[in-house]
Amino acid sequence: MTQITTDTTRSGSGMCCLVSGQVAFAGSGPGDPDLLTVKVLKALQEAEVVLFDRLVSAEVLALAGDHSQLEDVGKEGFGPSMSQEEICARLVTHAKAGKKVLRLKSGDPTIFGRLDEELTACEEAGVAYQIMPGITAASAAVAGIGQSLTQRGRNSSVRFLTGHDMKGFADQDWAALARPSEVAAVYMGKKSARFVQGRMIMHGANRATPVTVVENASRADQRVLETTLERLPTDLAEAAFDGPALTFLGLAPRQSAAALAELNMELA
Amino acid sequence: MTQITTDTTRSGSGMCCLVSGQVAFAGSGPGDPDLLTVKVLKALQEAEVVLFDRLVSAEVLALAGDHSQLEDVGKEGFGPSMSQEEICARLVTHAKAGKKVLRLKSGDPTIFGRLDEELTACEEAGVAYQIMPGITAASAAVAGIGQSLTQRGRNSSVRFLTGHDMKGFADQDWAALARPSEVAAVYMGKKSARFVQGRMIMHGANRATPVTVVENASRADQRVLETTLERLPTDLAEAAFDGPALTFLGLAPRQSAAALAELNMELA
Repeated sequence: MTQITTDTTRSGSGMCCLVSGQVAFAGSGPGDPDLLTVKVLKALQEAEVVLFDRLVSAEVLALAGDHSQLEDVGKEGFGPSMSQEEICARLVTHAKAGKKVLRLKSGDPTIFGRLDEELTACEEAGVAYQIMPGITAASAAVAGIGQSLTQRGRNSSVRFLTGHDMKGFADQDWAALARPSEVAAVYMGKKSARFVQGRMIMHGANRATPVTVVENASRADQRVLETTLERLPTDLAEAAFDGPALTFLGLAPRQSAAALAELNMELA
Repeated sequence: MTQITTDTTRSGSGMCCLVSGQVAFAGSGPGDPDLLTVKVLKALQEAEVVLFDRLVSAEVLALAGDHSQLEDVGKEGFGPSMSQEEICARLVTHAKAGKKVLRLKSGDPTIFGRLDEELTACEEAGVAYQIMPGITAASAAVAGIGQSLTQRGRNSSVRFLTGHDMKGFADQDWAALARPSEVAAVYMGKKSARFVQGRMIMHGANRATPVTVVENASRADQRVLETTLERLPTDLAEAAFDGPALTFLGLAPRQSAAALAELNMELA
């Protein structure tokens, strides 16, 4: 069982990155194109086919190479969104045709990125792949409110959750989340706000626990809602955020954020 | 208490980034310079003073601008490492002298980055700052073993912990961690491996729980140890990792990783 391996697939520094007939699964970060990694930027410019999700920003897609074929596999509204099976089939088809394929997901593909079905599809088809990490929304959002996800003397662990699945949580999870000074980042947590609030209070969380919701993290239209566990559902309904939002349980924006922003404006 | 704010400090896309007399706190990622964000790369080239930590890689520092003054504030071995107070004092001094200051930390400064003391020092001195996220070691390491941190049907949350502080954990934390299918990334967890193993088993974790340790994630000398909760302390001692290591509780490398690496080698 014990096995130590060295990684032979990692591209050397400065060299990039894509191989004909293979797929790179990459994170585009939360929207600001400056939050792309150098590696993903190079891949974007080198790819022959880019399959991208709905939340990948237009500013990021604008950086694709002139010869890149862009395929929106996450569209909504205009007809039903593409099925997971069809996305997998397209990845495989393009790779088998010998293309350099980039599968671009918003944020980090390893965090709530539904990566595994697509890896399996590649494996079953004998298509090799690599994974390129990206900046996840929680990192960008917390930087935007001048906070850390962990802090000595406050919390020595942080949890990333998805609002979609919190109904399956066990009592231990809720008890751990409800502890004072606990910090958690809830992805896609708008719809579950009332449920989360109820469970946390039921497990002993303080109603005055700070909660911050960041919509459109890192984008020009980023908005920040500062509230408490008690007021979360009400304030969130009032704010009527329609962009992707990240909810921080246990974090308030750093108090001087507003003052610093003013100072920045004066000095810039 | 309720407050919605828009962020006025965010630099527009394509524009960068540093302001004279201010400090940018930035993450350099885990080592591979291609995992720098575009924003941090620009900041590195634009900074007049760069204060960097011990784990920021030489390959990253090589990308600094020719005019940049590089200050190692994390050295070890050669005399004692610099105190936190002295680091804070230097940041403030350089900013007050009107420099464009970049404080470069490995990984993501918001995750176990000891960011807050330095933010406070800036605030107390009236020095404005911004925070630029980076790729945290867990994201790079999990990509390197072909895994996701979250996966539908397996785990809907992931926890980032530091081995240094796990002795302060409450029973709820251990009970939550010990649940089947739970995934956690332990930063700086080598010394605490035996303690963690003991507590998790005490709280009912399966001894066969997969555990993977990734040393030097994303770097040319990355190594991966595949083991179980039962064998973790023994195998870790045998492996004698001396670089920074990240321990995944509940994750094994994706089974086909080795085969895929071979395929990559043949096709590259």
